[in-house]
Amino acid sequence: MTAAQLTLVQIDNYGPWTVTPEPRREMDLQTLQSRLFADLAQYIGNRGGYVFFTRFDNMVAVTNGLDRRDHELLQESVGNRFPVTVSLGVGVDEVPIEALETATERVQAAGSAQSSDRSEAFAGEFLTESADDDVHIAHFDVNDATGKYTDRLNEFDSFINIEHGYASLMKYMREEHGALSFFVGGDNVIAVCPDLTHDEYMGAIDHVADDAGVQLKVGVGSGETPHDAGYAAKHALEDCRYEGTLVEFA
Amino acid sequence: MTAAQLTLVQIDNYGPWTVTPEPRREMDLQTLQSRLFADLAQYIGNRGGYVFFTRFDNMVAVTNGLDRRDHELLQESVGNRFPVTVSLGVGVDEVPIEALETATERVQAAGSAQSSDRSEAFAGEFLTESADDDVHIAHFDVNDATGKYTDRLNEFDSFINIEHGYASLMKYMREEHGALSFFVGGDNVIAVCPDLTHDEYMGAIDHVADDAGVQLKVGVGSGETPHDAGYAAKHALEDCRYEGTLVEFA
Amino acid sequence: MTAAQLTLVQIDNYGPWTVTPEPRREMDLQTLQSRLFADLAQYIGNRGGYVFFTRFDNMVAVTNGLDRRDHELLQESVGNRFPVTVSLGVGVDEVPIEALETATERVQAAGSAQSSDRSEAFAGEFLTESADDDVHIAHFDVNDATGKYTDRLNEFDSFINIEHGYASLMKYMREEHGALSFFVGGDNVIAVCPDLTHDEYMGAIDHVADDAGVQLKVGVGSGETPHDAGYAAKHALEDCRYEGTLVEFA
Amino acid sequence: MTAAQLTLVQIDNYGPWTVTPEPRREMDLQTLQSRLFADLAQYIGNRGGYVFFTRFDNMVAVTNGLDRRDHELLQESVGNRFPVTVSLGVGVDEVPIEALETATERVQAAGSAQSSDRSEAFAGEFLTESADDDVHIAHFDVNDATGKYTDRLNEFDSFINIEHGYASLMKYMREEHGALSFFVGGDNVIAVCPDLTHDEYMGAIDHVADDAGVQLKVGVGSGETPHDAGYAAKHALEDCRYEGTLVEFA
Repeated sequence: MTAAQLTLVQIDNYGPWTVTPEPRREMDLQTLQSRLFADLAQYIGNRGGYVFFTRFDNMVAVTNGLDRRDHELLQESVGNRFPVTVSLGVGVDEVPIEALETATERVQAAGSAQSSDRSEAFAGEFLTESADDDVHIAHFDVNDATGKYTDRLNEFDSFINIEHGYASLMKYMREEHGALSFFVGGDNVIAVCPDLTHDEYMGAIDHVADDAGVQLKVGVGSGETPHDAGYAAKHALEDCRYEGTLVEFA
Repeated sequence: MTAAQLTLVQIDNYGPWTVTPEPRREMDLQTLQSRLFADLAQYIGNRGGYVFFTRFDNMVAVTNGLDRRDHELLQESVGNRFPVTVSLGVGVDEVPIEALETATERVQAAGSAQSSDRSEAFAGEFLTESADDDVHIAHFDVNDATGKYTDRLNEFDSFINIEHGYASLMKYMREEHGALSFFVGGDNVIAVCPDLTHDEYMGAIDHVADDAGVQLKVGVGSGETPHDAGYAAKHALEDCRYEGTLVEFA
Repeated sequence: MTAAQLTLVQIDNYGPWTVTPEPRREMDLQTLQSRLFADLAQYIGNRGGYVFFTRFDNMVAVTNGLDRRDHELLQESVGNRFPVTVSLGVGVDEVPIEALETATERVQAAGSAQSSDRSEAFAGEFLTESADDDVHIAHFDVNDATGKYTDRLNEFDSFINIEHGYASLMKYMREEHGALSFFVGGDNVIAVCPDLTHDEYMGAIDHVADDAGVQLKVGVGSGETPHDAGYAAKHALEDCRYEGTLVEFA
Repeated sequence: MTAAQLTLVQIDNYGPWTVTPEPRREMDLQTLQSRLFADLAQYIGNRGGYVFFTRFDNMVAVTNGLDRRDHELLQESVGNRFPVTVSLGVGVDEVPIEALETATERVQAAGSAQSSDRSEAFAGEFLTESADDDVHIAHFDVNDATGKYTDRLNEFDSFINIEHGYASLMKYMREEHGALSFFVGGDNVIAVCPDLTHDEYMGAIDHVADDAGVQLKVGVGSGETPHDAGYAAKHALEDCRYEGTLVEFA
């Protein structure tokens, strides 16, 4: 049984802002985006949550452990420190994609992502009870990515391979299981999942090997918060490394 | 004629560091990575260059306008302020992928990405003369991404569409033209290109529409530095918006 | 009645680090220090606490509202993201200086600030019950600082005046009341105080006017956390502005 | 002979912004201020300059090595990434306080620090030739501050002692020599000076010992840029440490 609380963080009217009155320097935009993400990672992360940069103007967070007040304060603090504001939508469901669907609809209902009328919208529901298997996190990486890619190919071709594997995995996991998979740098992908079996994870790994020619392995953990689940998953992935296995549960 | 100067920024021995002595909190790693990228974006960006986060532990920069001393200082400053160090390789070529190939080989020659013996390696050659068409930048975005995706689908499905389009474009541009395309957030992709024609850009757009069902448009600019070229490309992309065209040159 | 929980944050072995193996670039040190402070301000601040930069290598925080686990996580996260680590000592007392005395002794007992053997020491006691008048915050500013100084003198002479007023206030408040006063930028000083009367604040303002020729006013608030107390104090200071008074309680 | 180029960085209309529409959270303001300073330290510092936080809403920089274009870009980039903008004034003189006087007047001439009409004012003159003794930097610290204060007193009383010494030094150096002294954390003060003799530095040290009971030592360096001069000063200060002397020139 899982109960994922998903939050959509959407920068208000960002597209128009980036070109008003003239296009802004691209590296300033990159700095702004990545620092906003970094601040969310700290704020959400040190409360036990996870956030993913996704498209940067839209970020997806797993916020089990954060309540309404935590969200309000996050929104206020961003508005105090950045030249942009954010709208937040929150949803809860057993299946991560369903929770995000609800979260997104709540933001969309408040106005378009490119509406100058919408600012700091906030709507959502929050988990009121929690259990120690609410969140399931799968931490994937590529088998010997350094030896096969990083130390051998030019960086762009390494990146294409990793990216290709990620694209294949993200699509499969979403379609088969309603899971949300995010590239988090290097050769790592973190997926927020419903409760899946060993065979279902094996199925995902086989699919990516066939479809994209990339060999993944995965550690899986569960917990009351994304951090608890993800930390257990990291340890399970270390077990894969030592045991030479492809799927390990914490 | 182009002369792209490409720099590979690779964090030294990062994989092992992230799990020593125990796996580190994922959100701390995300914070570290995105802040390192933000600092590079500022340093390189305010000297006229562009940097892309790529895999975060490996970042690719277009550094026309930055000399050896600029690179040395960047490396020293990162070492003073972060718990990790970076190695740098630099290459120059008409074709971006060739320049990156050289840059990568220089880092690889100094040791593995996961060697504890390699720290702050630095090797490269630098452009000694510059011309105002050294760098060609193409700035792509998705036609009406807000209306088609962001305001209509849940954020993950929007992301899958954008990602799919990007994966298709990055592969095509690299294979056909040796160009390097990077997702920079929202629905934007910035490509460092050789000197390409209107038809060649049209070919890329058609390919992505067929292959991934995503309708792109593109503004193209050239300049002495990535910022000059990229800024012109942004203006050209604004022209596409106003004219309803798919390819515009500055 | 007050119960101030004070935390000393001391960077481990920082002095030696700044000159090893060679003196590090001063602006990198300034960047590191101010970003570490900024991160503490976010972490502690969004839990209701206040932190002051003091000497930057030693920072003083008022941490009512933060428990042992919050402190442990802060220490771990700094260690994951910075090239330095911090030791923490925590003390509780009615009188702020006594709480800080205890907090400091706990860090000192673990080793010298310049010992390479001490790393991430942590000792302290924490408030177990809280009341809505645990913390008293006084927010001082200079009457018409813009008109008298900023718009009229060169910035260094403005600064000398403000600094002189601050030096006078910090000494008086510490000696008379065991209160801790911190310059927080502009013409603002925030003091963590025991429960003081209108006349006692008037006495401080008169002292600074006589001793340093600087005319202060002050808003005073109390609350369960520094933020609650400080926010009330800010509103009280706004009242001074509108009423033309020198001391206002929230 | 010296030629100091001083820049005043003043946040536009900051005071009113901090309380509009309601007082903003103090820790958000502290974060904003210290991060803005950190970014200036990087930008100015990696071009050879020095910047000091002073009052945070007004910062003083020594910008030998930065030209008009560097200043314009700094101003633009801050505006792109922060919720506030900055005005800049630049002056050049043999005597630092005179250069700052001119720089400040240029900002003041554009409007009040609390005027909502003034935004991103910029006026100044720039050094057109440079010599390797344009800038003189004196780096002071307190003799055995760790043994006398940090490891023995509570942090606030340590701070009062250091602060007291700093207040005495800043005033003396400004009045006697037109030099600008800035506390930079720990027990360190960096002063931008005209060309002073060994005896004049000895005079300053004696004054502070008498006036504030704090024993300083100082390393002095000169260079084309603040970094060059300051780096030499740091080495000279290390010489003091090894030799047991109170004044050393690089």
